[in-house]
Amino acid sequence: MACAMILSSCSFGGKSKSSSKSDNYTTTGSAASGTYQGVIENGRYKTSKARGVTASNNDNTFNVKSFESGLTNISKKVFSTKSYIFQEGQYLSKSTVENWLGRVSKSNKTGLNPKKGKTNGTRNPVYIQSIEEQDYMKQNGNDLKLHGITVGIGLNSVDYYKKTTNGPTYSQNISDAAMKSYGQQAAQKVIKRLRQKKALKNVPIVIALYKQASDDSLVGGTFFEYSVNNGSSVGTWKKLNITNKVLPKASDATSTNSGNETDNTDFTNFKSQIQSFFPNLSGVTAQAQYENGTLSGMHITVTTQFYSETEISSFTQYISTAAQKYLPSGIPIDIKIQTSTDMQAFVYRDSGQKKFSSHVFDSY
Amino acid sequence: MACAMILSSCSFGGKSKSSSKSDNYTTTGSAASGTYQGVIENGRYKTSKARGVTASNNDNTFNVKSFESGLTNISKKVFSTKSYIFQEGQYLSKSTVENWLGRVSKSNKTGLNPKKGKTNGTRNPVYIQSIEEQDYMKQNGNDLKLHGITVGIGLNSVDYYKKTTNGPTYSQNISDAAMKSYGQQAAQKVIKRLRQKKALKNVPIVIALYKQASDDSLVGGTFFEYSVNNGSSVGTWKKLNITNKVLPKASDATSTNSGNETDNTDFTNFKSQIQSFFPNLSGVTAQAQYENGTLSGMHITVTTQFYSETEISSFTQYISTAAQKYLPSGIPIDIKIQTSTDMQAFVYRDSGQKKFSSHVFDSY
Repeated sequence: MACAMILSSCSFGGKSKSSSKSDNYTTTGSAASGTYQGVIENGRYKTSKARGVTASNNDNTFNVKSFESGLTNISKKVFSTKSYIFQEGQYLSKSTVENWLGRVSKSNKTGLNPKKGKTNGTRNPVYIQSIEEQDYMKQNGNDLKLHGITVGIGLNSVDYYKKTTNGPTYSQNISDAAMKSYGQQAAQKVIKRLRQKKALKNVPIVIALYKQASDDSLVGGTFFEYSVNNGSSVGTWKKLNITNKVLPKASDATSTNSGNETDNTDFTNFKSQIQSFFPNLSGVTAQAQYENGTLSGMHITVTTQFYSETEISSFTQYISTAAQKYLPSGIPIDIKIQTSTDMQAFVYRDSGQKKFSSHVFDSY
Repeated sequence: MACAMILSSCSFGGKSKSSSKSDNYTTTGSAASGTYQGVIENGRYKTSKARGVTASNNDNTFNVKSFESGLTNISKKVFSTKSYIFQEGQYLSKSTVENWLGRVSKSNKTGLNPKKGKTNGTRNPVYIQSIEEQDYMKQNGNDLKLHGITVGIGLNSVDYYKKTTNGPTYSQNISDAAMKSYGQQAAQKVIKRLRQKKALKNVPIVIALYKQASDDSLVGGTFFEYSVNNGSSVGTWKKLNITNKVLPKASDATSTNSGNETDNTDFTNFKSQIQSFFPNLSGVTAQAQYENGTLSGMHITVTTQFYSETEISSFTQYISTAAQKYLPSGIPIDIKIQTSTDMQAFVYRDSGQKKFSSHVFDSY
């Protein structure tokens, strides 16, 4: 790792030159409240050494997005966005992560997944589906210094596999208990290996465990625990109570608590209100996230046919008003209004905002 | 036309009932500054009587959007968004507009386009490609009353046609002078016909002429003149000086004025700055609109490959900063950041705003 990293203080485009190195560092610019600045090296974004591995290991893109943004959210609990700068993982290379994600064998001694098991015995599933590293830096005079890393481990709730290359896909369910136990053991190995790297000897290492949603899920998985570690073995696990749901709830689904029931009713009222606006509106669905049983945010998608620009404009206005009236206050919500091919308009209320903003995508 | 239209004053969902009719009217909700409220009838958006005709007559979707939003912009010059309510056109039916758009013949006496011409003589092109009506209402006690209409006439700069049903497509260019002259004559006929409708006898009628862009254009056409009429013939035409351009300019394009040259340089600097951020960024293009030779707005599209959520987040932040630094101030600009299939993030500065806002599309 370069020891002379220069970061010009929050200055975009203004480049500083190290006396001993030709590397130039800047950041992505003054960040919005609650988001990290990222590191730019020689005018290029400093991408992850294991770039693309997480995405290529997931058939459900909801898992990819929720794993990555969920990991950032856990980092925010430990590394304040005000004092830390985000850097894509630089210590785990692509081949390292790929080996770790493999099954352990003579040719892959670092594999974190178990041997397949005997042909006539029980099959051992692939537990660990993805690993992602994030680095958190601080300015230190003119240098940029690593002050902590976060590693997310994505665990399968269902392991999908093929018996022959072009054969059908089979699936093996993994119980929550088995997944958690296997994940915690893997975390122990990971932290030991990380501590062997010189640069990672003394920084806090956050490890977080994520339960992947099944491939047919319309919402990604969730992180269920994390630990902040200063030593070379995992300390206390902090439990996270995060659940994702799809709304409106299927009519035969059982209610888990009365709060969720109210949210579903609110959303159904919103949906009915806007579905009556146009004939032939295709769909209104939402991803809802709960923290400790309370709704913490929603991503809503409204699928339309191709409407005229004035229709889209009126519809967007109507949706903003309906959202303000029917949807829960005090949480971030975004609403995409789109045809099968294009986003037509967009309504959102960020965290901390009281009113919805909207934008209609126009063209000259 | 119903004479007892009830509009509850800006109240969303609150429905008023006419004593003589069962129609219930509300509006789409309190509108953002500079946009119209629309009319909702019995809980449904009051769609145009000629809904879909404009879209189905255009192979270039940029023309569709720019025709519709350009027409709304002209209406705003005459009917203030503060005192008028927008209603989709209710006086020209689908069949009426379709007949008007046809060639005049024994079976279609109202056709506004000329006969094709003799087989061996010169072909008369189809001049008029689209017609769209917008209604502008005011509250009058408990009633909603028509106070003016706007009619846009879309004229071909190139007429595309086939000699046989499945044969190749031919094109015939139409000069600006011929297009304008034909459009003005058609406008005379249109206003005469509109005045024959009882409801349209005494309201101001705005007629606006639009020059369609060719089918291969990456930007739509523009309105070039309009007139506000109280009588039954077209009065004075007011010239509009609006042009659309695609940036960056092709290297062999000739400069039209030095202002455009500066805008192109600004955009090229912005483009270079953000293209260096990632390897393999596919494209950065813009639609730019000029009014009276001055840049009045931009729609920018940044095409990316599939990036991770943290990469998109950093990239969006970087783009916001670069936009603030390189792009002209004081005009509305929006920037779509998208893969070939999905919008990943969005950066924009609305009219009157000083700073760019951004949103990254996330998933649970």
